[in-house]
Amino acid sequence: MELQVLSQVPERAPSSGYLDGAGNTSFPELLNKRLVDAAKGNEVDSVPVWVMRQAGRYLPEFRELRQNHDFFEMCTTPSLACEITLQPVRRFPLDAAIIFSDILVVPQAMGMKVEMVPGKGPVFPSPLSQPEDFVALKKPDLSSDYEPYFDSIYLTRHSLKGKVPLIGFAGGPFTLFTYMVEGSGSSTFTKARRWLFENPETSHSLLSMLSEVITDFVWGQICSGAQYIQIFESHAGYLGGKDFEDYLLKYVTQIASTLKSRMKQFPDFEVPLTIFAKGAGYALEQLCKTEFDVVGIDWTVNLEEARALADTYGKTLQGNLDPALLYASPETISERTREMYSKLGKKRYICNLGHGIYPDVDPSHLGVFIETIHQVSS
Amino acid sequence: MELQVLSQVPERAPSSGYLDGAGNTSFPELLNKRLVDAAKGNEVDSVPVWVMRQAGRYLPEFRELRQNHDFFEMCTTPSLACEITLQPVRRFPLDAAIIFSDILVVPQAMGMKVEMVPGKGPVFPSPLSQPEDFVALKKPDLSSDYEPYFDSIYLTRHSLKGKVPLIGFAGGPFTLFTYMVEGSGSSTFTKARRWLFENPETSHSLLSMLSEVITDFVWGQICSGAQYIQIFESHAGYLGGKDFEDYLLKYVTQIASTLKSRMKQFPDFEVPLTIFAKGAGYALEQLCKTEFDVVGIDWTVNLEEARALADTYGKTLQGNLDPALLYASPETISERTREMYSKLGKKRYICNLGHGIYPDVDPSHLGVFIETIHQVSS
Repeated sequence: MELQVLSQVPERAPSSGYLDGAGNTSFPELLNKRLVDAAKGNEVDSVPVWVMRQAGRYLPEFRELRQNHDFFEMCTTPSLACEITLQPVRRFPLDAAIIFSDILVVPQAMGMKVEMVPGKGPVFPSPLSQPEDFVALKKPDLSSDYEPYFDSIYLTRHSLKGKVPLIGFAGGPFTLFTYMVEGSGSSTFTKARRWLFENPETSHSLLSMLSEVITDFVWGQICSGAQYIQIFESHAGYLGGKDFEDYLLKYVTQIASTLKSRMKQFPDFEVPLTIFAKGAGYALEQLCKTEFDVVGIDWTVNLEEARALADTYGKTLQGNLDPALLYASPETISERTREMYSKLGKKRYICNLGHGIYPDVDPSHLGVFIETIHQVSS
Repeated sequence: MELQVLSQVPERAPSSGYLDGAGNTSFPELLNKRLVDAAKGNEVDSVPVWVMRQAGRYLPEFRELRQNHDFFEMCTTPSLACEITLQPVRRFPLDAAIIFSDILVVPQAMGMKVEMVPGKGPVFPSPLSQPEDFVALKKPDLSSDYEPYFDSIYLTRHSLKGKVPLIGFAGGPFTLFTYMVEGSGSSTFTKARRWLFENPETSHSLLSMLSEVITDFVWGQICSGAQYIQIFESHAGYLGGKDFEDYLLKYVTQIASTLKSRMKQFPDFEVPLTIFAKGAGYALEQLCKTEFDVVGIDWTVNLEEARALADTYGKTLQGNLDPALLYASPETISERTREMYSKLGKKRYICNLGHGIYPDVDPSHLGVFIETIHQVSS
């Protein structure tokens, strides 16, 4: 099946709205249901596999496009975002596409400036530096502020022709909070953590606002065609114990619960929800107790314990090969993928890496990973 | 008791050597035995407390000295290292001093250049970039390459006049490996992890060499007066499962075991050994099975589980307050310290933060932490 970006975004039904669940119309029939089946606990013919950042810099075809476009220009131009989303699906027998976008589009929609600086990553020229700054943030308008992202999803869902499902995503409240205060990536995020503990009340107000904003953004993605949702709490490893519960778990629990009740109201939009709290292996049981269908795990997690917990709570696991293992020889990649499968099994398992694929990985090594999991599990 | 740096390094016995255990002579009697008692599982009158990086940038008296001296100049000038080590012990009722030094003095002694760049941290102008580079590394000469560090310990032990014990330390093999290959700090250490998985055999040779070098360096510290040893595996969180066992656990296990057999040969030099593998909460049980006496834990670790494991294996726990909590109000610091104590108890517990104190913390907040743990546990 040849995948081409449709020459224009198909028009939506006139009544189309993002929050009333009426935006999702006449999409092509889904042909590969492995991802959705695994998330629901249904049987699969082989374990579904997709990879975080599969649409990205390790692909020469992505780097070629990137030369002529700014990062956020690519996120906000539906035809470009769609093309990039399709690239890995053309090259590999992946079981899902994930929309090309970035978790920081939400702070942007809230009025913050974010730039992607090559070699450095995202930079906020004016991060939140005192509690008062928080007041200037606006709640995005769903019918205008997210238009290009929702259009990208709508266009890509059509362009995929049902070959594989389309994944939408958002950053979790705590992770967005840390970026908005820190102003850039960091190995310690001490500015953000200082803010958190110096201003616990404002922190809760901000986290609460972010949770609402994220919930609506995700719902808009679902109404625009996203068939699976992942919330990235990439900085969960900076918390622990009580602070994890207070500043992270509470909010993602709310997000899942609000989305689930909206889905009950609009059953056509029932899609699986995944939480990936990187570095929070310590809280796996608490995450399993939420309404998320799938719990993502990184490579530090003990697989036997994770499998037992997920089974107890009826959750699907997603992960967890160390992305650095794709630097190893094809033999090692294959061996380690088989070992992972032997511990996680065919049921309620979605194969993935334990974090995003690194930009300097040889794409053929990703091919070995995908081929191995399909082979060993079918 | 007024603590002053002795005007010169006292002369050692003429037969003094670092590896034959004959260097340790006529030190003042130790007056505060809490740390050593807690490590051995003996009763204590109150829980001992010290803090990682307690001799460092958060203290104005340290910053004043730092203005006129290069970082590594301070590590290699015994009178300066001694003065810095004494600073926090003068200011706070701490139960231990930790020698001012850096984990990267070992790669330096092996022939690598390391610079401390303000605002950036340590930088290796020529990191190991290909497996062949490893051949150029030398095994340090114990009687010459470490002279200033051993002299610092000897001088400081005398200058402390037995007020509190003196802690020596070293980086663990895996953590040193990651710095030597990466060339600087990083939030992903992908260069180092690429090297590890692309060159597993050379990696093992290097880790093995590092383990021997570290063991000898630590033994030299013990023979020079260190009364407690901590191995910092600060990057353990980048590994997981089998790779943690192969590339980290195996080597620190060897280090503990070799040191313990040397101590059996020279019982006067029996000192407690601590392993702090940050981010390795997933491997707490494996760490408890080694010959280390004390297992350090960070703030992501579940305290009830950690206490149960440590008790099963007869180990002492050390940690674990999130260092960012020292940004909170004095009331919160006190409350959270009490909560930590209520879960870890008085027996076999050494109070500490879950990582080094941050440079922008108000010193009086550290005071609250120290005061609270003494108060609540006596």
